[in-house]
Amino acid sequence: MSTGHHEASWRLPESNSFAGTDVAHFQRLAQTAERGKLDSIFFADSPVLHGNVAQRPYGSLEPTVLLAAIAAVTERIGLIATASTTYNEPYNLARRFASVDHISGGRTGWNVVTTAGDAAARNFSLAGQPAHSQRYERAAEFLDVAKKLWDSWEDDAVVADKDAGVWADSSRVHPVNHQGRHFQVEGGLDVPRSVQGHPVIVQAGSSENGKDFAARYAEAVFTAHQTLAAAQDFYADLKRRTTAAGRDPQSIKILPGIVPVIAATEAEALRLERELDELILPEHAVRQLANLLRVPPESLKLEAQLPVDLPPEDEIEGAKSRYTLVVNLARNEQLTVRQLIGRLGGGRGHRTFAGTPDQVADAIQHWFQSGAADGFNIMPPVLPSGLDIFVDQVVPILQDRGLFRREYTGRTLREHFGLAVPANSFERVPQPA
Amino acid sequence: MSTGHHEASWRLPESNSFAGTDVAHFQRLAQTAERGKLDSIFFADSPVLHGNVAQRPYGSLEPTVLLAAIAAVTERIGLIATASTTYNEPYNLARRFASVDHISGGRTGWNVVTTAGDAAARNFSLAGQPAHSQRYERAAEFLDVAKKLWDSWEDDAVVADKDAGVWADSSRVHPVNHQGRHFQVEGGLDVPRSVQGHPVIVQAGSSENGKDFAARYAEAVFTAHQTLAAAQDFYADLKRRTTAAGRDPQSIKILPGIVPVIAATEAEALRLERELDELILPEHAVRQLANLLRVPPESLKLEAQLPVDLPPEDEIEGAKSRYTLVVNLARNEQLTVRQLIGRLGGGRGHRTFAGTPDQVADAIQHWFQSGAADGFNIMPPVLPSGLDIFVDQVVPILQDRGLFRREYTGRTLREHFGLAVPANSFERVPQPA
Repeated sequence: MSTGHHEASWRLPESNSFAGTDVAHFQRLAQTAERGKLDSIFFADSPVLHGNVAQRPYGSLEPTVLLAAIAAVTERIGLIATASTTYNEPYNLARRFASVDHISGGRTGWNVVTTAGDAAARNFSLAGQPAHSQRYERAAEFLDVAKKLWDSWEDDAVVADKDAGVWADSSRVHPVNHQGRHFQVEGGLDVPRSVQGHPVIVQAGSSENGKDFAARYAEAVFTAHQTLAAAQDFYADLKRRTTAAGRDPQSIKILPGIVPVIAATEAEALRLERELDELILPEHAVRQLANLLRVPPESLKLEAQLPVDLPPEDEIEGAKSRYTLVVNLARNEQLTVRQLIGRLGGGRGHRTFAGTPDQVADAIQHWFQSGAADGFNIMPPVLPSGLDIFVDQVVPILQDRGLFRREYTGRTLREHFGLAVPANSFERVPQPA
Repeated sequence: MSTGHHEASWRLPESNSFAGTDVAHFQRLAQTAERGKLDSIFFADSPVLHGNVAQRPYGSLEPTVLLAAIAAVTERIGLIATASTTYNEPYNLARRFASVDHISGGRTGWNVVTTAGDAAARNFSLAGQPAHSQRYERAAEFLDVAKKLWDSWEDDAVVADKDAGVWADSSRVHPVNHQGRHFQVEGGLDVPRSVQGHPVIVQAGSSENGKDFAARYAEAVFTAHQTLAAAQDFYADLKRRTTAAGRDPQSIKILPGIVPVIAATEAEALRLERELDELILPEHAVRQLANLLRVPPESLKLEAQLPVDLPPEDEIEGAKSRYTLVVNLARNEQLTVRQLIGRLGGGRGHRTFAGTPDQVADAIQHWFQSGAADGFNIMPPVLPSGLDIFVDQVVPILQDRGLFRREYTGRTLREHFGLAVPANSFERVPQPA
C-alpha cells in the first residue's frame, strides 16, 4: 500500500491519504531506496478493486507505467512490477516489459502472478477464475512465449548501414511461430532485444504449483514466513527443486519479506507497532480474514481461536499458500482472532520485527547466515518514514558488517542480483572459420 | 518513426539509427514541443512488427509506458498514445490510461484504433483479423466500458477521514456491471478518477465506420489530405456527423497532418525534400505499396501508372481510408509508381509542404482559415531537426499573427484543446434541501 505495509498506516498524521495516485510519492521512495543502494523496488498488483475502500486506500497506478515514470528520475535502482498471465496477452506484456527495460537501461523485473479470485475474473468477461492448475499451465506457456518474443531480435540484428540503406539484418529478426494450447503467436516482437535480454523473472506463489513454477522459471522469489524454521525449509526445498529442474541453485534468489518497525529504543518500536495495530478497525479486519478463510464473518469471534472446521488447502482455488500460512500461524501460536488480526494487519503474513536499527540488522543477518534467505523484501510498515529510517540507520550497519554493498557495482537489475543475461534461443552459434 | 516521418530520414548523417529505443530521444522531442507551446505529442502504434526491418527502423517502445517516462520530465505538453481496442481488454487499458493521466497531471489522450491487418491478429491467437465492421462494433462497446470504468469513482469519493478510519465513501465507488456482446465487466476500476475524468479520446480512421465512430466518441481526429478541397469536405462532413450524433461540433477538433520540409529558402527546402526522396530504395517501397493495394509487387512498374484493375474499397478489410487516399492520389494526379512512392515516402498520405518558415506558416494559416482544420498534426520529416526548426522559426510567426498561444493557459490536454471534463455518469445530482 502506498502509505506503508501496515494496513492502518494511512491513518497516521504523517501519511498522505492520496499517495496512491501521486507519482511524486513513488518517485521519492525509489530515490530513497537508490540512496540506500537497494537492489530494487517492487509493486504488487491485481487487476481488480478487491477490498473495501472504506477501510483503507485501494486503487493503485498500473505498475508498468508507474515504473516507466520512476525510471525517468532514477539511475540504478531495479524496478519490479507485478503483472498477471491470466488476464494479459503475451505479445502485449512481453512488449511492455521490454519497453520498460529499454527505458530504464536494463533495470526491470516482472513478478509473474496468475491472479487468484473470482472478482478479477469478472473484470475480464469470465464468470469465475480458471482453476489453479489451469492458471499455472497458462502461466508456463505464457512465459515460454514471452521468452521467445524477447529473443526474436538477435542482439546484433540492427546494422544501421546508412550508405547501403540497410537498417537491420532481417535474417537476425525471427518470427517465433508459437503454436500452443493457450496461445498461437507469430511474432517477432516489435521492439528490439533489451539490455537485460529478458527482464528478471520474479515469482511469489508458494503453493506446490507455485514452487514448481518458480523452480522452472523464477530468478527471484518473494516469500512470507513467520519463523526461521519455516523460512529454512522453504529455502532448502526451493533450491532443491531448482536443481531438479536442471538449473543452478544460485540462479534463483530467495527473498523473504520482513516488516521492520524501527525506533531508537526497543520500547519505542514496540509502542509504534502497538499504536498501528490499535488503529485497525476490527470489523473490517474480521471481514477480510473471513474472505481469506472462505467462512462467514459471523463465525469468527474476536476473543476466540479460529473455528476447527476450516476447508482444507486443496479446496482453495486461489492464494493457497497464503491461506495455509494464516491457518498455521493461528493454530501453531494458538492466537485469538484479535491477535491474528494484529499480526496480519502489520505484515499480511510476512514477518514483523520491531526493534532498534541494530536489532533489525541482527535479525536480517541471522536469517541471511542461517540458510533462510539470499536477500530480503523490506516492507516498511509506514511510508516514507519507515524506508527513510531503514536506509539511514539499518543499511549503514549492514555495510559496516560487510553484508551489503556501499556502492552499486552494476547498472542493471541482473547485475545487482548477480544473474547472467539469458542466452538468446535464436542466436546462431558462430562457426569456426 | 523515431528519426522522422520521411521513411528515409534514418539514412541522413544527422540521424540516430537507434533512436527508436532511446527514451532520451523522445524526452528531448517532447521538451522541444513543450518549448513551442504545442498541444501535444502523439505516438502511432500497432502491436505487430509489420514492416521489413531491412528497409527502415521498425520496432518501437510501447506508447503508454513511453508516455509515462516522458510525463516525468515535462510539465505541460499533452501526451497521446495509440492503443488497440481489438487486442486489449477494456479493464487493463482503461486503467493504464487513467494511470498515465494521474502520472501526467491530466495530460493524456488515447488514440483509439481497431488495428487493421492479419499479421497483428496472428500475434493474438487469431488466424486473421476480425471483419472491419466487427472491429468497430467491438471498439464502440470497448469505449462504453472504458468510460463507465473511468467514472466508477466519483470525484469526491475519497474522504480520507483518519479519525473515523474511513478512507473512501463506498457509496461513491461503483461497480459498472457491464453485460454486453463483447465484454462483461463488473468493475469498478482499481484507480480513482483521474484529473481529466477521461483521457481525451482521439481517433484517426476515415472510413465510413471510422467517421461514424469519430462522430460518436472522438474529441480530436487525426486525418490525412493532399488537397484543401478534400480537407474541407472531410471537415464539414465530420462536423455534420458530430452534430447528427447529438454532440456540439466544437467538441471535436479536426487535425490534418502536415509534413513541413522547412529551410531558409524555398530552393533549399525543395532540395532537402528531393534529397530525402532519393534515399528511398524503390524495391522496398514497391513491395510496401503492393501490400497496401493487395496486388503482387511485380504488377507495379516504376515508370507506369497503377494497374487499372485494383480491388474496390469495400473488399479491403483494413486501412480502408488509406487505400482509397492512395488510389485517388495516383489516379487524380496521374502519377507513375515512382512518383507515387516519392509522395508516400515523405508523408505516407499526409500533405507534404516544402518551403520557408513564412511559407509554411502561410500554408497552415490558409487551411486553418478555410474551414479545413481546427489545428494540425505536425509531422516533421526529420527528427529532431525538423521539430527544432518548426518550433524556433514557424511557431513565432504564427504567434506574431495571433494564431497561436505564446504561453500555455491550461495544465491539462483538455484545457489545451478547449474541451470540457466529461460529466461522471454515476454522479448523483445534488438534491435541493
